[in-house]
Amino acid sequence: MDLAKEVGKTASKKRRTIALAESITGGLAGSLITDIPGSSDYFLASFVTYSNDAKMNVLGVERATIEKHGAVSAQVAKEMASGARRIAGADIGASCTGIAGPGGGSEKKPIGLVFLAVDDGKSVRSERKVFCGDRWAIKSQAAVRLLELVLKALQSE
Amino acid sequence: MDLAKEVGKTASKKRRTIALAESITGGLAGSLITDIPGSSDYFLASFVTYSNDAKMNVLGVERATIEKHGAVSAQVAKEMASGARRIAGADIGASCTGIAGPGGGSEKKPIGLVFLAVDDGKSVRSERKVFCGDRWAIKSQAAVRLLELVLKALQSE
Repeated sequence: MDLAKEVGKTASKKRRTIALAESITGGLAGSLITDIPGSSDYFLASFVTYSNDAKMNVLGVERATIEKHGAVSAQVAKEMASGARRIAGADIGASCTGIAGPGGGSEKKPIGLVFLAVDDGKSVRSERKVFCGDRWAIKSQAAVRLLELVLKALQSE
Repeated sequence: MDLAKEVGKTASKKRRTIALAESITGGLAGSLITDIPGSSDYFLASFVTYSNDAKMNVLGVERATIEKHGAVSAQVAKEMASGARRIAGADIGASCTGIAGPGGGSEKKPIGLVFLAVDDGKSVRSERKVFCGDRWAIKSQAAVRLLELVLKALQSE
C-alpha cells in the first residue's frame, strides 16, 4: 500500500516514531503500517481499545469525557491520541473512534461517523468525517484517513 | 470471514470476552474479529505491541524473559497472552509474536517462525509454527491461526 510506504519513508527520514489508538478500525491501521518491511523501526504500538473500559484503563481516557460526549466524539479521539503517544513514548499519537454499523447509529451520530485525532507533542487536533458504505468500507476509509493524518503530521515536523 | 464469524457466534453463545496481544500480525487479527457486526459485545481490546518496550510497559512482559529467550519465543508469547487477558479483564487472552521478514531471520529463528499462546484463566498454552511465503502471507497465516486458537479455547470452555 503506497500510503503506508510513504508513512514509513517519511518516519524513517525524520526519525519519528508512531503509536496508534484504534477503535472503529479494530487494528486495520496498524496492520497496514506493519505490511511494510522495516516498520518496527518507527511503529511502536497500536492500542485497539474497542470497549469503553479499555479506552479508560489502557489509554487513560477520562470517564467524564465519555459520559459527557460519548465514546464517538472529538474529545475522546483527542484523549485516545494523547494516551497512545504518552504510553508508547512515541513522537506522534493518532487515533480514531466511530460507528461502523450496521447497529449503533442515531440521527445525531449516524453510521459512518468517525472522529480522528493526532497529537504531535505540540498540539492535539481532531477531525470529523462521515464515511459511506458498509461496515468494511467504513473501517477501510477510516484506516486510510488515519494514515493520511499521520503522514501529514510527519511531513509538517 | 467464516472463522471470525464462528469466533463471534461461539463467544456470544458462551458469553465470553476476548483480548489479543499482537506483535507480528500488527493488528490484523483484531481487524478480522471486528469485521463482524456486533463484535463489540465480546471483543474488548488488542494490544499491538510491536516494540519490546511496549511488550514490557503495556503488557507487563518481563525484561528478563525477553533477554533470556528473545521477543520471538514461547515464553514471551505466554506472558503477552496473560497480560492481554489481565489488563483488558477478558475471559480469554491470546497472542502471537514472530518474524515476518524479509529481515530479522536467523538459522535458529527463521523468517516465518511464530509463537502463539492462549490464556483461558486455567492454563496458558503456547504453540510454535513456521509459516511460508512473503511478509503478507506470514502475517495472514499467523492471524488466522490466532483466531483458530481463540475459537478452540472458546469451544473447550
